This record gives sequence, C-alpha cells and structure tokens, in this order.
Amino acid sequence: MDYEARFEQAVASVRDEGRYRVFANLERIAGRFPHAINHGAGKRDVVVWCSNDYLGQSQNPLVVEAGVKALQVMGAGSGGTRNISGTHRLHGELEAELADLHGKEAALVFTSGYVSNSATLSTLGKILPDALIFTDELNHASMIEGIRFSRCEKRIFRHNDLEHLETLLKYAEPERPKIIAFESVYSMDGDIAPIAAICDLADKYGAMTYLDEVHAVGLYGLRGGGISERDGVAGRLTVIEGTLAKAFGCMGGYIAGSSALVDAIRSHASGFIFTSSQPPATMAAALASVRYLKAHHELRIKHQERAAELKKRLARAGLPVMESETHIVPLLVGCPVKAKQVTDMLMEEHGIYVQPINFPTVPRGTERLRLTPTPFHDDCLMDDFMKAIVDVWRKIGLDREYRQAA
Amino acid sequence: MDYEARFEQAVASVRDEGRYRVFANLERIAGRFPHAINHGAGKRDVVVWCSNDYLGQSQNPLVVEAGVKALQVMGAGSGGTRNISGTHRLHGELEAELADLHGKEAALVFTSGYVSNSATLSTLGKILPDALIFTDELNHASMIEGIRFSRCEKRIFRHNDLEHLETLLKYAEPERPKIIAFESVYSMDGDIAPIAAICDLADKYGAMTYLDEVHAVGLYGLRGGGISERDGVAGRLTVIEGTLAKAFGCMGGYIAGSSALVDAIRSHASGFIFTSSQPPATMAAALASVRYLKAHHELRIKHQERAAELKKRLARAGLPVMESETHIVPLLVGCPVKAKQVTDMLMEEHGIYVQPINFPTVPRGTERLRLTPTPFHDDCLMDDFMKAIVDVWRKIGLDREYRQAA
Repeated sequence: MDYEARFEQAVASVRDEGRYRVFANLERIAGRFPHAINHGAGKRDVVVWCSNDYLGQSQNPLVVEAGVKALQVMGAGSGGTRNISGTHRLHGELEAELADLHGKEAALVFTSGYVSNSATLSTLGKILPDALIFTDELNHASMIEGIRFSRCEKRIFRHNDLEHLETLLKYAEPERPKIIAFESVYSMDGDIAPIAAICDLADKYGAMTYLDEVHAVGLYGLRGGGISERDGVAGRLTVIEGTLAKAFGCMGGYIAGSSALVDAIRSHASGFIFTSSQPPATMAAALASVRYLKAHHELRIKHQERAAELKKRLARAGLPVMESETHIVPLLVGCPVKAKQVTDMLMEEHGIYVQPINFPTVPRGTERLRLTPTPFHDDCLMDDFMKAIVDVWRKIGLDREYRQAA
Repeated sequence: MDYEARFEQAVASVRDEGRYRVFANLERIAGRFPHAINHGAGKRDVVVWCSNDYLGQSQNPLVVEAGVKALQVMGAGSGGTRNISGTHRLHGELEAELADLHGKEAALVFTSGYVSNSATLSTLGKILPDALIFTDELNHASMIEGIRFSRCEKRIFRHNDLEHLETLLKYAEPERPKIIAFESVYSMDGDIAPIAAICDLADKYGAMTYLDEVHAVGLYGLRGGGISERDGVAGRLTVIEGTLAKAFGCMGGYIAGSSALVDAIRSHASGFIFTSSQPPATMAAALASVRYLKAHHELRIKHQERAAELKKRLARAGLPVMESETHIVPLLVGCPVKAKQVTDMLMEEHGIYVQPINFPTVPRGTERLRLTPTPFHDDCLMDDFMKAIVDVWRKIGLDREYRQAA
C-alpha cells in the first residue's frame, strides 16, 4: 500500500477544485491594528480587512497587560487537565463572569469554540440518547460534527425557516427529547436567527434550545451578551455557546446554562475532561476583555457605524455588497478564480489583505470577500480600501459582468 | 420533557459511582514551582505532586519571557482561523522546529493534543475510507474518539501485545490500508510500547503507523524527540503526535510526518480548518521551550534521577509503588474511597496536592495516586512527601491491608 500516494492524491483533489489553501503569513502589530506585517513575499505592511478580532480587543492594553501579568506570575502552561492540577483560580473567575454575562447559573470554558460545540452537542447525545436534534442547514462545521458524534437522529431545517422547523417538530414523536441547535449570527452571510420565535416553537413542542453566539458575543446587547441579550431572550435558551477568540480577542470557547446542565457536560464530555486546560494567561486576558466589553457599549456602537458606513460606500460605488443585518459585510464575486484574483491584486497592488471565501465554506457560485470592518478601520483606511477595490474590480472586469447580470 | 431532571440525573449517576469531580482550585507561582496556592478552603501554600508540567518548563524564564514579548508585540489573540487571517509567523516557525525535532518533513499545530489526535485520526478515515485501524486497548480517549469518528473498521489489540497485534494483522485483508495507532508512554502505568517491533510488523503487513508521544516529547531522546528518538525509530513512523502542554509547559498539540501527509491533514481536517488558531504568545512560548529542551539534556537526566529516587524511597518504605519504566510513579491504593481519603489527608494535614486517579481513567480496583516528580522536587520536598505518605498510609490503615494482601 503506497500511503504517500494516497496522501498526495488527497491534496491533489483539493488543488483540482481550486480549493488549495496557502496561508497568509502575518505578524500582528499590537497598538497598530488593523495593520500587520505580511511575511509572504518579502516583508510588507498590510491592512487586514478580514479579521474576526472584531473589536481589536486582542491589542487592548488592559487585555494584553492582564495576560502579561498572569504569564509572569503564574507561568505559561496550566500543567494538566482541569481535574488533575490544571484548574486555576482564573478558570473559575472567568466562568463566573461568563455565566453573569448571559444571566445563567453557570458556565464552562473549553479549549476552543469548536470543541465547545463538538463536545457539548455530542455529550447531549449521551445524556439524552433518544433525542432528536433539529439543526439549521447552515450551522457551523463544529456543530455538525457534534451532532454527528452524538449519534442522535437529526432533522435539518431550512435556514432560519420557522415554518419548516415547525413542520419537522410537529411530525416528531411528542415524548422524545428534542434539541433545536442554531446560531444567532451566521458568519458568512451576516444574517440573524429569529431567536424568540424559535424559543416559542421550542416551548410549544417541548424542545430544549442550543444557540451558538460566537459571532455575536461581545458585539450585541448592552453588555455584549450577544443577540440573545439584545432581543431579551437569553433567559429562554437552554444553552448559549460563545467564543473568547473573536470579539473578546483571546482564545477558547464556552457554554452557559443551568448549573445542572453545565455540571452534566463537565462530568461527561470527553473533549472537556481529557484535555489540558487553558493557560492562566489566556484566561486572565479573556477575563479582562469580557469585563471591558461589558462596560464599553460605545465600542459596539462605533463597530456598527463602521460596518454601516462600509456597506453604504460599497453600494454607492455600485459594488455587489450582499444584504447583511450585522457587522459582517460580504461582497459577492461568484467565482473562486476571480475571488482569488481580486484578493491577490488587493494584496499585491494595494497592501490590503482579505481572504477569499470559497466552497465548502459558502455554496459554489457565491464565492465572496467577507469584510469585517472594526472600530479601528477609520475613514482614512476606508477611503484607501474603496479606491483599491473599485480599481481592482475594474481591472478584472467584474464591473462589466455585474452590470450585465443586473 | 423535564430536561433539568435529565441533566441532574446525569450528574447523579457520576456521583453515585463515587466519580464526581471537584476541581482543586490552584494558583501556580512562577519561579516557585512545584509550589502553588490552593484557593480551595481558605488560601494555603501547597506542593503539587501530580502536574504534567514534567520539567517545570511553564515557569522557565526564557519561556515566560518569549510569551510576554509576543503578547506585548503581537497582542492576545490570533484573530482568525489559520486560513482567514490567523496564521502568524510564529505558527510556521514552531511547525518547522517540531518537524526538525522529529526528523520529519513537516509538522502541523492544533489547538490541543486532544484535537490533534481526534482530528488527524478521523481525517485519516476520510483519506483512507477503506482502512482498518489497529488500536492498543489502552489508547487515550482522544485517539478512541478520532478512531470512532473515522468510521473505519477497527481492531483492538491487547496492550503492548505484539503477538495479538500480529494475529489481527495476519487475518486482515492484505489489500486494505492499515493504520496501527498506539502510544509510546502510557500515562497511567508509565510503561513503554515496543515501537521498533511494532514498526517491524507494520513493514511486514504493509501498515502505516500513528504514534502518540504526548507523555514523552521533551522528556526522552537526546533532543527531547521522545521514545522514538531514544530508540532511533522516528524515521520509521508515519505520524508522530505530540503535545506542547506537558513537558513543553505551554498549550497545543501537533503531528509530524511527510509533507504530503501533513498537507492532506491540513487540507481536510475539520477540527484544524474551522477553529481559531493559537495566540502568538502561546506559539512563542512553545517555540522557546522546544528549543530550550533540545539543548538541555541535563534536565532530562535530572528528571529521570528524581523519578528513580522517589520509586526507591517508596519501595524502601514498603509502599505499593507500581512497576513503571518511566518518569511516572503510580502508587496503588485499589479503592476509590480510600484513594480520596489519602489525597484529602495529604492536602489537609500536609499541604501536598495529588489527585486520585479513578475509573474510567484506570480500571476499577487499580485506583491510584499518579506521582510525577520533576527536577524541582528536590530531596527536601521528597523527605516531606515520604513522611506525609507514610503517616497517611498508616492512619488510613492501608499498611495493614497491603501486608495482608502481600
């Protein structure tokens, strides 16, 4: 058996589909975000327009300082799993802070948002082995993985389609446990789930709810509790899942819910139990960030203003900015080759870094740039970006195509 | 459906089996390892005897300094997945360093060792869908999860049993791809796999090999390449998997192998692709640690000397130290209730922290203390420990029991 050939073939298949990924080799510059150094071809200063560090919190001096202090005082690693010498004071403090953020009794921190989804959903399948899981068709890969590993029966409902969800609930056996799993902000389109209406359906059909808020925590609600806070429905959700790696600018994921739920997951989730816990420094930085964003709503207002401004400018320039209710600004290209051309030219000729988004992250034919302006993308950077994108769009001939299609 | 009741029941089942975990609430003190503050009941200074920070690298000033510098210069989080703005110079440098450590063409860093096992093994199942996986019965939970998620057929071989493994290989269809998945150091017993002999079988029956070295990297071999380096067989293994969270004192996991293999996993593993990458500070600290341990074999010699010394002292005192070929020193108790009594008393009366190891981590009836002396557990701390354990052993009546059973 020629294993090397099989590995090469697996890479070739991705290459053939035009999906082979070459990672941009960056170096962030704290204090100068969204500027970074690109080590790709030579060393050059670039402006990042596709970061999930939505509020630039990773460079907030209070966040950095909290991390530095913890590193110096407590060292680099945690030294073990949460159960075997790896629980530190800061894990508990952060979990209490996150529980409070969502108005829940308890919270539990995981090594990543991916793991929190995968581990929690798969463990719910152990706790409720006869459950039916109702899952939005656009749910994130980590939720799909968790649901698959739960070994529960699943029903996929059309994206944000309440009628379809209700039909599926109606035809399910009434006595079986039911879990509705969905996201608040869908990260590639920037649309928002009708959380309250989904909770109504959950009540009507006796389902529990699992809401992924990773693209919303820190960003929505008066304290950054996410869309569920903004909509005043946090109390109705069984599980709220979030991340520390996007708006909070650090690393890790978490769930918040009732004490019993959190304790059950804590006691049964293999992906939580058998893994080294997060370093004290990451926990300290995240704690500082969560506390900061609870108290600084003005950053969220500025964030929304910047996103609205960019959408306005793109539309005014006649560029195909896709509809989005949130801070995520998708710009349609519709072809993987052209999307790559656009982003290569933005980088080479204008020092602007945007990663093209291709299949399978988005459906074929909807390849796009996913722009994420932060409060630090000021008018001056936006002027530069608009000049660049209009120029590139014209050079590649996307303007003609768009006019023809329209 | 009363979901709360189901969650409570899931916790109660763990409690009933005496397996409910209460995490020790510690605060590590950089520069004073293995001392820490226990915030459990009041605040008290304790000595940690069960850390996987095997060499105290988490407090190595060079490691801490590298982390601090990266935090200050590059900020807290990475800002995205590896593909979307989250690859930083340090990821590549660390991966090159790890590839070199194992004499492989390439390496790939994951958010944790757990994820590296789960994601790589499950992805191998996608790349080689017709594969048969031969797995040691004592493999870690993360490997078991990865193998389950690979959806490949599996054959479990008796622990480190070459004859049994060969029988299973012999009866497998010759034309099917085969993966032998095993560990070098088994963490709860401290025994070592016959790597060379397993590679012989792999050659004979056309299998590829997957070796988990998480309890060996940094600790064995002249440069800390693990047991595979010590035994001179690294070149024969298809995949070597390791962690940055134990001997290297940081966080994260990795695999090392051929360029094609690493590129295939990089391109197909959901748990690698769809997760935020590790923060620059963690990568910088890990890089400093790997480099340091490559050059400081004397730390490994001291480590082995300390483990041998503790084993000798325990045996001399007539305590049931279990046979172990490594730095892991298991002390048999054989009952979950007594194991907890021992560790509670060690903590309360002697300020010594050891976590009892119970089912399902070890088989029922083999409940134990798992002691991990580091180069920082000097003779003085060892004197204290021996006095304490002999005292506790006598008070609980384990000495009589042991003599009766012997």
